[in-house]
Amino acid sequence: MKLYDYPQAPNPRRVNIFLAEKGIKVDRVTVDLGKQEQLQPEYIAKNPACDVPMLELDDGTCISQIRGITHYFEAAYPDIPMLGKTPAEKGLVEMWEHLATMNGFLAVAEVFRNTVKGFSNRAMAGPHNYPQSAELAERGALRLPNFFKDFDQQLAKNEYVAGDAFSLADITTLVTCDFAKWIKAEIPEDCSHLRAWYTKVSDRPAVKANP
Amino acid sequence: MKLYDYPQAPNPRRVNIFLAEKGIKVDRVTVDLGKQEQLQPEYIAKNPACDVPMLELDDGTCISQIRGITHYFEAAYPDIPMLGKTPAEKGLVEMWEHLATMNGFLAVAEVFRNTVKGFSNRAMAGPHNYPQSAELAERGALRLPNFFKDFDQQLAKNEYVAGDAFSLADITTLVTCDFAKWIKAEIPEDCSHLRAWYTKVSDRPAVKANP
Repeated sequence: MKLYDYPQAPNPRRVNIFLAEKGIKVDRVTVDLGKQEQLQPEYIAKNPACDVPMLELDDGTCISQIRGITHYFEAAYPDIPMLGKTPAEKGLVEMWEHLATMNGFLAVAEVFRNTVKGFSNRAMAGPHNYPQSAELAERGALRLPNFFKDFDQQLAKNEYVAGDAFSLADITTLVTCDFAKWIKAEIPEDCSHLRAWYTKVSDRPAVKANP
Repeated sequence: MKLYDYPQAPNPRRVNIFLAEKGIKVDRVTVDLGKQEQLQPEYIAKNPACDVPMLELDDGTCISQIRGITHYFEAAYPDIPMLGKTPAEKGLVEMWEHLATMNGFLAVAEVFRNTVKGFSNRAMAGPHNYPQSAELAERGALRLPNFFKDFDQQLAKNEYVAGDAFSLADITTLVTCDFAKWIKAEIPEDCSHLRAWYTKVSDRPAVKANP
């Protein structure tokens, strides 16, 4: 089994923290996004979505997307669950991971990919070229403060994003807070619950091992 | 347990087909999106994301988002799996469901919510108001043909979207094809594999029971 990885980028980091939390070691192949290696024909043949990370199993099956890779590992290595234990916990982790992805991670990506000059015709990851949109960058910048505020409210009532246990929902939220620094945004001062949670989860060994 | 539902809308339909496929019956409460009942204080108190569907368990736990609700039911009622059986199948279902959501369903929603007059300050579902973006509507219209083509290629090699078995990835893809009709888009003539798959899955009893 091989994980195609580029640890400097936020999406691979989500999987790398997840694997470190579960104590899973896996062989890695670097796909240098700076050199656009994800758009080379031999990589596209394995992963038509042209993104990283991607997991290639020993039988040649290729699984991409954070959800795909994390659910594979959660099912194959159920010890140290990161996607919930009971049916209700599983539902809540999926719910909050989805909200973190859609309202946080994507809001930052909307700003980043639609403003950085190097992405002038690459406003979305993947096989297709799309022009940048100033309106979408503006909307992302409007959305991010609402994400911080909404998650601050959730963390006022819960120790972790999806409830009592650390989960993939925390990982996505943490990586979003760090990804936000790429667009010079930070957790607002008045989001005290989110800030305290951020300090706490940033100190976890699996997070410090994947900075 | 109660499912807050509005069967006319595409997102609730995804869960309704999923439940029908699994043979699960559940009490329902209608939340009339046409009357903006999802923005009433008593609903927001249960579901701060202000969207439908939402599942309220008997202990008061509220689970929203398609992923949250479907993973709850898959774990609580594992018979007739809709999210894969083996670890590899589970990974592939998540991967393809994510791609269908992000590249198909969202592309249609980008066009719909950013062009229909009734959504002039409601370009996104949820608690926050955002203005419509003509650029985002244009981008959605560019993305949808690529979604159809990419999924046609996947269905040229596979009986169902995520492989050999019907899954939630098929449900999201099917609902996306029907949602596209709302913006007067259809599966292109040259996407013969996607068209044949669409005809086949539209004929399933669970789909016909949730038109």
